[in-house]
Amino acid sequence: MSSSNGAIEASPVTYEQLIVLEHEFDDVETEIMRKQYEMTKPLYAKRKDFTDKIPNFWALVFEQSPPELDQYITPSDSELFAECLKGVSIERFECAATPRSIALKLTFSENEWFSDTVLEKKFHYRRSPDGWVGLVSEPVKINWKEGQDLTQGLTDAAVRAWDERKANLTATVQQRLELPAHKALLEMVEKMDPTSVGFFALFGFVSERVYVSADEAEKGNQAEQERRAARARGDKVEEPEWNEDFEAEAEIEICPHGEDLALVLADDVWPNAIKYFTAAQERDDEQMSEIEFEEDEDESDEEVDIRALVTGRSSKRKNDDGDSPPPKRRT
Amino acid sequence: MSSSNGAIEASPVTYEQLIVLEHEFDDVETEIMRKQYEMTKPLYAKRKDFTDKIPNFWALVFEQSPPELDQYITPSDSELFAECLKGVSIERFECAATPRSIALKLTFSENEWFSDTVLEKKFHYRRSPDGWVGLVSEPVKINWKEGQDLTQGLTDAAVRAWDERKANLTATVQQRLELPAHKALLEMVEKMDPTSVGFFALFGFVSERVYVSADEAEKGNQAEQERRAARARGDKVEEPEWNEDFEAEAEIEICPHGEDLALVLADDVWPNAIKYFTAAQERDDEQMSEIEFEEDEDESDEEVDIRALVTGRSSKRKNDDGDSPPPKRRT
Repeated sequence: MSSSNGAIEASPVTYEQLIVLEHEFDDVETEIMRKQYEMTKPLYAKRKDFTDKIPNFWALVFEQSPPELDQYITPSDSELFAECLKGVSIERFECAATPRSIALKLTFSENEWFSDTVLEKKFHYRRSPDGWVGLVSEPVKINWKEGQDLTQGLTDAAVRAWDERKANLTATVQQRLELPAHKALLEMVEKMDPTSVGFFALFGFVSERVYVSADEAEKGNQAEQERRAARARGDKVEEPEWNEDFEAEAEIEICPHGEDLALVLADDVWPNAIKYFTAAQERDDEQMSEIEFEEDEDESDEEVDIRALVTGRSSKRKNDDGDSPPPKRRT
Repeated sequence: MSSSNGAIEASPVTYEQLIVLEHEFDDVETEIMRKQYEMTKPLYAKRKDFTDKIPNFWALVFEQSPPELDQYITPSDSELFAECLKGVSIERFECAATPRSIALKLTFSENEWFSDTVLEKKFHYRRSPDGWVGLVSEPVKINWKEGQDLTQGLTDAAVRAWDERKANLTATVQQRLELPAHKALLEMVEKMDPTSVGFFALFGFVSERVYVSADEAEKGNQAEQERRAARARGDKVEEPEWNEDFEAEAEIEICPHGEDLALVLADDVWPNAIKYFTAAQERDDEQMSEIEFEEDEDESDEEVDIRALVTGRSSKRKNDDGDSPPPKRRT
């Protein structure tokens, strides 16, 4: 409709002022996340006491999970969860520095797929020297049993490339991509069908763009602080130059959607687990009662809310008592 | 995969315990919303000082708004916003009682559509005696100029039915639906094309299900408190019976998606306004530079990130400096 062009140029307000303000909002949001994390901690502990006693609690949550997670769960993953997933936890392990870093921990009973009983993945929220911000993580080795690797060797290959990277830290990205484990991984990633890779590729996730070490993040944060200070003084500030080299590393990422997956787990599945569990139970109850219902004598053809019959609640009700899609709660 | 049926029955945990816990989570979330509202207030005041000076700020925000809002903005609405929308504000006007109640205020310059310069709509977060919870609101009269009503008479008809309702409070819903203004409204709603009704129908919104007065909400809350106390004692608690009569009132709702619209305005558009504004400006810059670019001499056919050329930033970057889809900030 209108031409926006120059809306800001036509005003006495500068982009710098808006950016400074946005950072003030971000700081408040970070503070709120910290408070929320501390305030909900005892409740999550209480929840764990309950959920530990409910068979298949987390497998049921995952079954009823939102599409952002569900699309990455294959039938084999579901089978594994139903068989041996015992617990899930999310921790903000560096809450004082940044509550956006996330540790995901899954616990399993003895099973036919791998010898691990705990798989823990830490996602660090870090800023690269060229100003990118996101979650980065080291690949986690899953000790798959012979012939049982649901990722068809991808997590192992990601760990091998990671070890090779650590042994060649001074090499450029392009040089590293010529090394054998990197080349092997690149070949696998090029052949992989992203729709069938499944949930466990997440453990091989490194970054959507580039890995950032703690040292690099410190440099990135310092440069950002300097930019913010300059903006606060009213100086015009250039964004740092985007390092195209970094993009190349993303080519060997076995889980390109890893950051989104970590966020949906931490910000939706984890806080709303009881709601998803309840939904899974109600769906099953509904299926059961439909069978019973069909066995009954004929009914008039008016629409009957089976769910209301069974649970005493309308499927329309919401925001209440753990019923379907709730406003998101954040940890 | 697994059969969930009986997961909870097979455990020593009861639904009542889970519901009590969910309410404890809700209470913390409400407290967090209050804190966030107080902590961000001065920042929103500062933002207003800036945005008041930027021509078309809010029209540009609405142009770039998320699909949940955008789908209800018709070309005529956009034209109106571009011509005369001066300001938008969201207030949590009963924050102490519940931070979920929302007051939306739009301000306009003199214009050809209506004689109002302020349109304010209050959404009360209330619980009905039968346990439903949601946003309810009284229809707001828009003083449309002759032949300029973008809602084709819907908001006026909603106000007339509302006045009739107030004059017939002791009547049942079914009786009220037989009264002339109700019947006229029902007829209009049945004929209306929901996709072309547009944004301003929101001002006629009453409720997704049923209007709840302050008195009724008090009864609803008291009953809920009693249920919670009983659950906390470990008693098994029946949900209140769903009053089917209430559903009938929703048939005359001119804006059935009104609650979702209020929430996307308050929880997304309002906190992220600078991000949407920046996106609108960048899109326009991009279109401009594409034109210049095409006028340039031939380039190699490799893909060029125009946005990066113009703004010095990659379109891939995020979580930073007001660049596109940010994690949601809440008020």
